[in-house]
Amino acid sequence: MLDFDISPLNTTLQEALLHKIQHKTKPLGALGQLEMVALQIGLIQQSMTPQLRQPTMLVFAGDHGVAQSGVSPYPQAVTAQMVLNFIAGGAAINVFSRQAGMALRVIDAGVNHTFGPNTHLVNAKVGMGTANFLQSPAMTASECDTAIARGAEIACAEIKAGCNIIGFGEMGIGNTSSASCLMGVLLGMPIAHCVGRGTGLDDTGLAHKIQVLTQAIAHHALNATDPYAVLSTFGGFEIAMMVGAMLAAAERKAVLLIDGFIVTAALLVASRIQPAILEYCIFSHQSDEHAHQMLLAELKAKPLLNLGLRLGEGTGAALAYPLVQNAVNFLNEMASFESAGVSERSA
Amino acid sequence: MLDFDISPLNTTLQEALLHKIQHKTKPLGALGQLEMVALQIGLIQQSMTPQLRQPTMLVFAGDHGVAQSGVSPYPQAVTAQMVLNFIAGGAAINVFSRQAGMALRVIDAGVNHTFGPNTHLVNAKVGMGTANFLQSPAMTASECDTAIARGAEIACAEIKAGCNIIGFGEMGIGNTSSASCLMGVLLGMPIAHCVGRGTGLDDTGLAHKIQVLTQAIAHHALNATDPYAVLSTFGGFEIAMMVGAMLAAAERKAVLLIDGFIVTAALLVASRIQPAILEYCIFSHQSDEHAHQMLLAELKAKPLLNLGLRLGEGTGAALAYPLVQNAVNFLNEMASFESAGVSERSA
Repeated sequence: MLDFDISPLNTTLQEALLHKIQHKTKPLGALGQLEMVALQIGLIQQSMTPQLRQPTMLVFAGDHGVAQSGVSPYPQAVTAQMVLNFIAGGAAINVFSRQAGMALRVIDAGVNHTFGPNTHLVNAKVGMGTANFLQSPAMTASECDTAIARGAEIACAEIKAGCNIIGFGEMGIGNTSSASCLMGVLLGMPIAHCVGRGTGLDDTGLAHKIQVLTQAIAHHALNATDPYAVLSTFGGFEIAMMVGAMLAAAERKAVLLIDGFIVTAALLVASRIQPAILEYCIFSHQSDEHAHQMLLAELKAKPLLNLGLRLGEGTGAALAYPLVQNAVNFLNEMASFESAGVSERSA
Repeated sequence: MLDFDISPLNTTLQEALLHKIQHKTKPLGALGQLEMVALQIGLIQQSMTPQLRQPTMLVFAGDHGVAQSGVSPYPQAVTAQMVLNFIAGGAAINVFSRQAGMALRVIDAGVNHTFGPNTHLVNAKVGMGTANFLQSPAMTASECDTAIARGAEIACAEIKAGCNIIGFGEMGIGNTSSASCLMGVLLGMPIAHCVGRGTGLDDTGLAHKIQVLTQAIAHHALNATDPYAVLSTFGGFEIAMMVGAMLAAAERKAVLLIDGFIVTAALLVASRIQPAILEYCIFSHQSDEHAHQMLLAELKAKPLLNLGLRLGEGTGAALAYPLVQNAVNFLNEMASFESAGVSERSA
C-alpha cells in the first residue's frame, strides 16, 4: 500500500500575504471569497507571487456493478459512450476545459468496454467495472491499492511535467450510489441524507435507491475508521483512482480543484487517510444534489459557484477555474494604494 | 428627451432552443442556470447559434455632492484617483477585464477633476460632480437628459463597431447613497432597507448615512412614478449615463451584463422607463450589500455569482463573463445524444 505524507500549510507568509491583499486599491475585504483563494494559493506555493501553471483536468471513468440494481435511469453502456464523447471532444467538460485553457486527460479507470488504443485516452483500467456491492465488495483490497497507485502515478506525471493545479472530474453510471455509501459510512449518516436524484431519478427511483443502499450498508457492516476498507467495498475504480491522484497531488503541493458530489466523496475518503489534504483544496461549486451540500458543510468547505449544476465530469471545476485565475491575478497585478497614489480610508 | 423603444423578446425560437439544450449529452437540466442563460441569449439574438462578439466593459465615473455629508469613509478625491488607476491599468476591473478578454472603456461622466487628454479615458463630462441632494436636486433636468443622451451615444458606438454584449460598471465616492435613494423612492421602501455599509462604514457611519438619506428623501417628497425626476434629483451623472447606455444597448438587442448595487439601481431606473429592458439583462452577482439582495429580489433576478464582493467597478460582471461565454459555447459546441451515439435515459 502506498504511503502519503501531506504537510499542513506552512503559514509563515500568511501575514505578509494578508498585508499585500489588504493594501490593494479596493476597500478591505471587497473581493470576498477571491481574497481567501489568493491567500490559500500563496500559502500552498509558499510565494508572494503565486502562479498557476499548466492547469489540468483529470477525468476518471469507471463502471459500477451496482448499476445492475436499477439505481440510475441510464444504462451502464452510457459510461463508455460518454468516454467516447469525451475523446471526440463533444461533452460539456470538453467545451468548458477548452474555454478555461485547461488540458483535459480522460482516464479509463475501469470502464466495462474495451477501447482501442487512443492517444486521447489514458488506459489505467483496473477491471471491467466493479462488482455489485449489494452482493460482495466492489473491489478487492489489491484492486483498490492498484487504483490508488495508478491515480498517484497519473497526478505525479502531470506535476513533473509542470502542472501545479489539477481539476478532478468523473464519469460512471451508478457512481452517485458509491459516493452516497462512502459518505453515509464515513460520516455515520443515515443514507437518506446522502442520496440524491443523481442524473434524474423520480420519486419511485429515489425510494428504490435508498432501499438498495441501506441494504448494502447493512450487509457489509463496516467500521468507519478504516477508509481503505470502506473505499474498496463501495468503489468505484474511478473514485479510488481519484483518491490516489488527490493524495499524490497535495503531497506535491499542487492546488486541488474539487468538482461535485462524487469528487467530494473521493476527497472525503482521502481526508480520512491524510486530513491535511483539505488545506490544498478549492471547492468549485455546490451542486444541485442536497447530499453534496451536507458533505461540503461537513468538510467546512465554501464553494465558489452555486449554479444548480448536477452533471459531474469536472464541469463545475472547469467553470470555476477562471475565478481561481482571477484570484491569483489580482494578487499579482493590482496596484496598491501607495503605488497608485490613491488615498486610503479615514480611520 | 431621448425616446427609447425596447421590444419584449420574440419567443418564436424558444421551443427549438429548449429542444437543442435538452438533447445535449447531459441529463435534463444538468447545467442549471447556464441553460437559462443560453436560452436567453438565443432569444435576444434570435439565433440557434448565438455568438458573443467584442465583449466590452463600460465603467462610468462621477462625483457626488452628497459625499460632503460624510456618507463614505473615503474622501471624494478617491474617485479621480481611481479613474487614474483605471487608466494606468492597476485596478481590479483592469485585471478582471483583461482576463475575461473584455475591452475596457473608462468614461468620465462627471468627476470633480480635470483630466488631461488621454486616449484611455472617454470624456463625457456633464459637470464637476453633482450638487448635494440634501440641499437641492443632484442635477438639473437638462443635465440628466445630457447624461442619458451621452450614455446612449457611447453604447451605440460600441454596438456599431461590432460589440453585442456590454458589461456595466461604475466608480463614484458617495454613489451607494444615490443608489439607495433611487431604490427607496422607486420601490417605496424604507431607506433603512436600501442602505448598506458601502465601502466599509461602521455602525455610527451607517446610522448617520440612514439619517442623511431619510432627510433628503423627505426634503424632495417625489412622486415615484416619474423616474426621470427621481434620477435627476438623486443622481449621479455616472448613474444617469448608465441608464442611457443600458436603454440604448437593449434597444439594439445587445446583452446587458449587470454588476452590483449601483448598476442594478441604474437598471431599476431604466426598467421604469422601459420595463422590457429586464429581458436583456444577465445578473452577474449578488454583492455583499444586503440592499442589493433585496433589489435583485424585486427585479426577480437570479444572479450567477455570490462571492461576497462589494467593490463595484464592474468587477462582478467581468468575473461572471466566462460563465456567460460557457453558456453560449455549450449551446454551440456540445454534441447531442444522437450525434454522439449516447443512449438517452429510460422513460
